[in-house]
Amino acid sequence: MGKSGDRTRVLLCGLGAMGSGMASMLLENPDVEIVAAIARRSSKAGKDLGEVIGKSPTGVKVTSDIDEAFRSKPDIVLQSTASFVSEVFPEIEIALEHDANVITIAEEMAYPWAASEELSDKIDRLAKEKGKTVLGTGINPGFVLDTLIISLTGICRDVEHIRGKRVNDLSPFGSTVMKTQGVGTTPEQFQQGLESGEIVGHIGFPQSLMLIGKALGWEIDEVVEEREPIITSVERRTPIITVPPGYVAGCRHTARAYSNGKEVILLEHPQQICPELEGVSTGDYITIKGDPPVNLAIEPEIPGGIGTIAIAVNMIPHVMNGPAGLVTMADLPVPRLWHTITAVSRK
Amino acid sequence: MGKSGDRTRVLLCGLGAMGSGMASMLLENPDVEIVAAIARRSSKAGKDLGEVIGKSPTGVKVTSDIDEAFRSKPDIVLQSTASFVSEVFPEIEIALEHDANVITIAEEMAYPWAASEELSDKIDRLAKEKGKTVLGTGINPGFVLDTLIISLTGICRDVEHIRGKRVNDLSPFGSTVMKTQGVGTTPEQFQQGLESGEIVGHIGFPQSLMLIGKALGWEIDEVVEEREPIITSVERRTPIITVPPGYVAGCRHTARAYSNGKEVILLEHPQQICPELEGVSTGDYITIKGDPPVNLAIEPEIPGGIGTIAIAVNMIPHVMNGPAGLVTMADLPVPRLWHTITAVSRK
Repeated sequence: MGKSGDRTRVLLCGLGAMGSGMASMLLENPDVEIVAAIARRSSKAGKDLGEVIGKSPTGVKVTSDIDEAFRSKPDIVLQSTASFVSEVFPEIEIALEHDANVITIAEEMAYPWAASEELSDKIDRLAKEKGKTVLGTGINPGFVLDTLIISLTGICRDVEHIRGKRVNDLSPFGSTVMKTQGVGTTPEQFQQGLESGEIVGHIGFPQSLMLIGKALGWEIDEVVEEREPIITSVERRTPIITVPPGYVAGCRHTARAYSNGKEVILLEHPQQICPELEGVSTGDYITIKGDPPVNLAIEPEIPGGIGTIAIAVNMIPHVMNGPAGLVTMADLPVPRLWHTITAVSRK
Repeated sequence: MGKSGDRTRVLLCGLGAMGSGMASMLLENPDVEIVAAIARRSSKAGKDLGEVIGKSPTGVKVTSDIDEAFRSKPDIVLQSTASFVSEVFPEIEIALEHDANVITIAEEMAYPWAASEELSDKIDRLAKEKGKTVLGTGINPGFVLDTLIISLTGICRDVEHIRGKRVNDLSPFGSTVMKTQGVGTTPEQFQQGLESGEIVGHIGFPQSLMLIGKALGWEIDEVVEEREPIITSVERRTPIITVPPGYVAGCRHTARAYSNGKEVILLEHPQQICPELEGVSTGDYITIKGDPPVNLAIEPEIPGGIGTIAIAVNMIPHVMNGPAGLVTMADLPVPRLWHTITAVSRK
């Protein structure tokens, strides 16, 4: 955090649900100053950040002009604008050109080499030239089905197979998520949606698999993904959608990594609305077949939205002190809460 | 690991159950060369390391002469000789004087400042002068009730209280462990054993508490430990001891950390033989009262012996590439399996 006593100057790039949540969290942290906030939507630009995120005025005016935003000389950019490396690359490049570190929650950036070696190498080269650090993080990819798994293998003498499963409830989410998971479609429409690319399931499986493989020194020579409809046998209902029996309540997305022709990692992420209506409870599960075996459960699952907001903010000190270049969660010290709000004495 | 392709030169200091287990694990790793092994017991000195650990000959002769051992010019020392900072300090000092990095499983070394600021500062100073890294690790302290907890707080916006519980089975252990846990005593003898210091319970609670506190920036102003007998209501029996009803089957050891007069961390470690006979199942449990809350279970518990052997060996690459000085598990990248024995393709 630069000189002792300095506050870290943060630029928020993206003010959707994730960016707004990061803003709220940062406003409670006395070691941080939000120096600029970029929103794509012109309806937000020109307003005070506090107004945009439903809080008291902050004195920071939201802008849609990236050049204007960087005149605030941020130490670090928190980027929450898109999912894919190709989409977020231009903003990351601009951030580095302005000598800022970057934390992004773009799913593909958790292990960007899986999506684009070329853009990843460009980011890495520029970050090293500038002596800055770029990290992709989030709950998943970024923590539950990769970083947490990696850290558990640290207590093993050998590992033969890894299975991770994240069972969550999509009920709180909005219409975009329902569409990308196929919620409310018929089985036929689900199939068509997969083919047209409208239904995508989870974004990030190749990243989690390659991140684990890289950390363990495993050569992953094939990744196979599968997406199946979760067809409900009872009516399921959320504030925005009602799914009758026989229709699709979500997407059961799995991914397998093979090494030397053998399955070595299986990740499963069935996402649906109201899983409890058919007796499915939510949780994060990791099973390592190894010496010793490890059998972990986190119940309920770590919530994706809050968790992503928190880990992005909590990684700021690690990134500020990180090695120059494009890094992953496996390259940095174990994550941890940065700032405690409740009444403990702080050092 | 020095130049690419070089094997890491390891000196084993201590060849008890832990050191022998590390030796076995290292012998399977082609990136390692065991260059020397020190045993205190003269019955082991002069023998081939393979013979001492029950394996094929290795060509490494066990010695009780520390100066002779260091003539092998090790890159790193794995120390498993004792529990306390004051006991292991002389060997760590010698290792650093010989330009070797150190990984120790001495429980107090997981956060050595809790036991001795003075010796810790000396180690840190010497390590920095020599450009070497010294790490204390293990399963507990070192991972389950500290590093794992720290990493889970990384997905929290706030944390109010942390509770960790490790429930294990002492049945496989030998007479030393039975004595230090008070197994087989009467409740009165247990009390006397606590007072005389013969019964100690778990070693490492202050270390785990301070490691968490340091990582989260919490000022821990008081640590309170409590040790109670676990009195059995049924006969419990292991190969080396039989405990009748009304006698002590183990030690329920708890530790609390206070900040600003408020309990912020509670760690519990009831250790006993045959817990299943009274319906107690074993496991590692972490409950974070925070935003979001986290509720984790690992069942059965991560085995202490294998886990300690594995994590000590697996941390070698991190320590070889670590920052100069005395570090903790919270300062280094997330742990991970170093070498995979089973048939995956290796990078």
